[in-house]
Amino acid sequence: MASPAQRKASPPIREFDLIRQLQRRHGAGNASILRGIGDDAAVIVPSRRAWQLLTTDLLTEGIHFDLRTATCFDIGFRAVAANLSDIAAMGGRPQYLLVAIAVPRSGSGREILQLYRGMMAACRSHKVRLIGGDTSASSSGWFVGITLIGSVPPGRALLRSGARVGDDIYVTGTLGDSLAGLALLEEARNGAATTSLPERHRRYLLRRHLHPTARIEEGHWLSARRWATAAIDVSDGLSGDLRHICEESGVGAEIDLAALPLSPALRTYAKSAGRDPVALALAGGEDYELLFTVPARDRPRFERMAAGRRLHAARIGAIGPARAGIRAVSPDGRRRPLPVTSYEHFRSGG
Amino acid sequence: MASPAQRKASPPIREFDLIRQLQRRHGAGNASILRGIGDDAAVIVPSRRAWQLLTTDLLTEGIHFDLRTATCFDIGFRAVAANLSDIAAMGGRPQYLLVAIAVPRSGSGREILQLYRGMMAACRSHKVRLIGGDTSASSSGWFVGITLIGSVPPGRALLRSGARVGDDIYVTGTLGDSLAGLALLEEARNGAATTSLPERHRRYLLRRHLHPTARIEEGHWLSARRWATAAIDVSDGLSGDLRHICEESGVGAEIDLAALPLSPALRTYAKSAGRDPVALALAGGEDYELLFTVPARDRPRFERMAAGRRLHAARIGAIGPARAGIRAVSPDGRRRPLPVTSYEHFRSGG
Repeated sequence: MASPAQRKASPPIREFDLIRQLQRRHGAGNASILRGIGDDAAVIVPSRRAWQLLTTDLLTEGIHFDLRTATCFDIGFRAVAANLSDIAAMGGRPQYLLVAIAVPRSGSGREILQLYRGMMAACRSHKVRLIGGDTSASSSGWFVGITLIGSVPPGRALLRSGARVGDDIYVTGTLGDSLAGLALLEEARNGAATTSLPERHRRYLLRRHLHPTARIEEGHWLSARRWATAAIDVSDGLSGDLRHICEESGVGAEIDLAALPLSPALRTYAKSAGRDPVALALAGGEDYELLFTVPARDRPRFERMAAGRRLHAARIGAIGPARAGIRAVSPDGRRRPLPVTSYEHFRSGG
Repeated sequence: MASPAQRKASPPIREFDLIRQLQRRHGAGNASILRGIGDDAAVIVPSRRAWQLLTTDLLTEGIHFDLRTATCFDIGFRAVAANLSDIAAMGGRPQYLLVAIAVPRSGSGREILQLYRGMMAACRSHKVRLIGGDTSASSSGWFVGITLIGSVPPGRALLRSGARVGDDIYVTGTLGDSLAGLALLEEARNGAATTSLPERHRRYLLRRHLHPTARIEEGHWLSARRWATAAIDVSDGLSGDLRHICEESGVGAEIDLAALPLSPALRTYAKSAGRDPVALALAGGEDYELLFTVPARDRPRFERMAAGRRLHAARIGAIGPARAGIRAVSPDGRRRPLPVTSYEHFRSGG
């Protein structure tokens, strides 16, 4: 076992200085931060008259990312986007970021720097400040631990538990793009780039996978205007995430498969690869779109105002009673249980 | 690369239920927690009229811990103690814990449960609530990411930057015990338990390594009574941590090696193992004692009141001007630069 001394990663001085500069630059400029990186703990003055949101994630090489298909910049971007998305799904605004990374012996200071650059790029439009940054050694791969703090006005947090029978179910953006982007990356890695696809579609799907956009503005609007009764972000896949809402709210749901929002790029990819675009949309995680419910009586007003804001929200189904379970309606009108392609918290075995 | 579905660790149902129970039990019972584990983010009402302290750490198997010499309970305990110690060094009280762990394929639900039990045991006397808990898969070893949130009254945070020339330097408890405990564990692992030591000393040193005590009460008192001008916890080793205070405060320091507080167990161990106890005290990290400075004019009153509280604080030196650097005074009166045995943030090379 290493002595405490050896446990710290030691990038070369030049990169180390750059990383410190980066940490300082992104840690300053906010009167509520009394102490950022550089003491035993960060010190902040929490927002008065606000609730605080806290979320944490640990991403591991070989499971959540692969350095053969993504750069350190991409990995940093996605790690932070996933946490931003959790704050978006609560209707909040992100504020403070704490980062803890473990770096393998093969890792360089330049890579750490790129990782931070990716993280800060994901934060760019949200004024998130970096208040904690710890770097240690890893005896295996890269590990990225992110903690994100946000805030929401009292009483306005969007929970998973508020969906009621009769509510409409909506999802922002399009589904399945991230999974298609991942498939394209893996094809390229295996040297078997067989799927023929117009370059603009390829670029779109790759961007959706590597640099996803957290729906902060959308979540904030849904919460501020009290549209949504429940919300979650699509990180595990539509079927898994819908199940979380149903379990927490004690309801069932019916999804209209023909209504799932699919991008032109995904449709083109699916055709070329001989895959079912609806299956991709159902199974694909990490789209970081918002899945939320709105009372049916608000439908006309909600859809009109969403359109006015250019907020793309597709109505994909409705909440039903718990006893009806979670079902999918096929274009031919048949109802079946929605296949659980991603949710496996209760699957037994190691 | 795994699909999002496969990225979740899946302990057997029975253990999974136990882990959820544990998370629920330790996440409840506090009116300021509006939502703990079970939504996209935790929701809390931050303390009014308090500053908030935030610290994060990522501990990795093979670097920070070794499952051949420590149980999952021990690893959980130490991971949380290290973060509690950061809050102690700021003079704060710990409040909320977020945990993100990555579990190798060989890891069992029982081990995850033990890890959580160790974490909650470290928190026991501090009323810390668990508000975030994420478990994912690891393609290599165990990784434990801890984020701890605490609070301190406005203006009372103990920073590293407040030490002034002439201040006395103190340290709580004793130094080097954790390193000696680690050495005993490694001897046992290698099947070469050669160091003969009374059982009570052996147990003491092992406990100091495996189940360290964060000095929360001590830090709180130092802050509440405004005794300390600067403080840090001894995690990297005395020489490295003193250097942090000196750099942040823009001062130098002189340490009296004969004054370093050594436990009877450490002295006995050092004798038996043929090692220098002072070198162990200087190099040993992870003692999680507090290193702090007090103006010399307050010395009589501080030492009297500390003794009255049974707070063991040894005066080990004094702050000097920056140009004098950081020096050690040997028992024979010779002054030498204090060897930097652990601090290596600026060491170049990968």
